[in-house]
Amino acid sequence: MKEELTRQSIQLFERKGFSSTSVQDIVDSLGVTKGTFYYYFTSKETLLMDIHLRYIDDLVARQKKVLDSNESCRNQLTKIVEILIKDIQTQGSNVRVYFREMRHLSEENSSVIKNKRRMFHLTIEKIIKEGIEKKEFRDNLDPKMTTFAILGVTNWSYEWFDPSGNISSKELASMYMDFILHGIDLKGE
Amino acid sequence: MKEELTRQSIQLFERKGFSSTSVQDIVDSLGVTKGTFYYYFTSKETLLMDIHLRYIDDLVARQKKVLDSNESCRNQLTKIVEILIKDIQTQGSNVRVYFREMRHLSEENSSVIKNKRRMFHLTIEKIIKEGIEKKEFRDNLDPKMTTFAILGVTNWSYEWFDPSGNISSKELASMYMDFILHGIDLKGE
Repeated sequence: MKEELTRQSIQLFERKGFSSTSVQDIVDSLGVTKGTFYYYFTSKETLLMDIHLRYIDDLVARQKKVLDSNESCRNQLTKIVEILIKDIQTQGSNVRVYFREMRHLSEENSSVIKNKRRMFHLTIEKIIKEGIEKKEFRDNLDPKMTTFAILGVTNWSYEWFDPSGNISSKELASMYMDFILHGIDLKGE
Repeated sequence: MKEELTRQSIQLFERKGFSSTSVQDIVDSLGVTKGTFYYYFTSKETLLMDIHLRYIDDLVARQKKVLDSNESCRNQLTKIVEILIKDIQTQGSNVRVYFREMRHLSEENSSVIKNKRRMFHLTIEKIIKEGIEKKEFRDNLDPKMTTFAILGVTNWSYEWFDPSGNISSKELASMYMDFILHGIDLKGE
C-alpha cells in the first residue's frame, strides 16, 4: 500500500503540483481512508521527502557502480548520461516531481537532498577533471560549469522527451553523448 | 501599479509557487486592496498568462532581430545563447516562474504559449539546418534534438547560476558556446 500511495501521489503531484494536491485527493483516488495514508506517512511532506530520498539514493548508488567499473572517463560519463536519459522512460514522473517540488521540503530535509545532489555533481566533476588529466578531455574546460552543462542537456529532456515517440531513449542518449563529446562545429569533427 | 503587482507576484510565485500564493498574499505584501488587484487582472491566472506572454513575446522579438542581422549561423546561435544566459541576471525570477508554472494556465492560454515557444524552437532549428547546409555545422546533427540540447544547457542554468558569483553571465555564455560548438573531447579541438 505504501508503494501504491507513493505511485499515485507522484501522478497527482506531477499533474496538479504538490501544493494543489491534498491528502484527501490522494486517498480518494485510491479509494482508501486518510487513516491509511497517515499509517505510512506522518504528513504530505514526509511523502515528498521519501520520493526525493529514494530517487537520489538510488541514483548515487548507480553512479557509484559506474565509478567502480574503472573504465575510461569518457565511458563513465557515457554511462551516467545513459542512466539519466533512460530514467525518463522508467521513472519520468518521479524525477519531474523531484526536480519541481524540492522547494516544498522543510529546510532540514531540503539540505539533506541538496547535499546528496551535490555529491552526485561532484562525482561528475571528478570524472571530468580526471579525463582532463588523462588527456581524454580538453584541458581548457571548467569541470564545474561543464558538469552543469551536461546535466542541463539530460535534465531538460525530462520536460520534453517522449520515450514512446520516434526516437528511443537509447538513441537520444547516444545523440547527446555525441553532442557533449564533439559539439556541433564542423571543425570539431 | 500593474508593474508593481506583477513584480511582487513574480517574487511570491517563485518563492512559494503559484498555487500556494493567494491574491490576498499579493495585495498584503504591497499594502493595497484586492480591488486594486482586480482592477488590473480579472484573476490570478490572467496575471500568470500576462507574465508568460510578455516574456515569450519579448524573447521572440529579440530572436527576430538576431535573425534579421543576417550573420553566420554560428554567430546567430551565439547571440541567442547570450540573450538566454543574460536574462538570468536581468529577469531570472520571471523566467523561472515562466518555466515552472505553465501547467497552471488554462488549456486555451497554455496552447497560445506553447505555440509561441514552438516558434522560438523552430527558429533555432532553422539556424542549425542552415548551418549544416552552409557547412558551418556537422551534417550528422539532428536539428531538433540539437535545439533541445542547447536549450537544455541554457535553460537549466536558471536553476543554479548565480550571476553575482565568480563567473559573469558573459563568461558563462562564452563557456557554453564553446561547449556547444566544440564539445569536450580532446579530439574535438
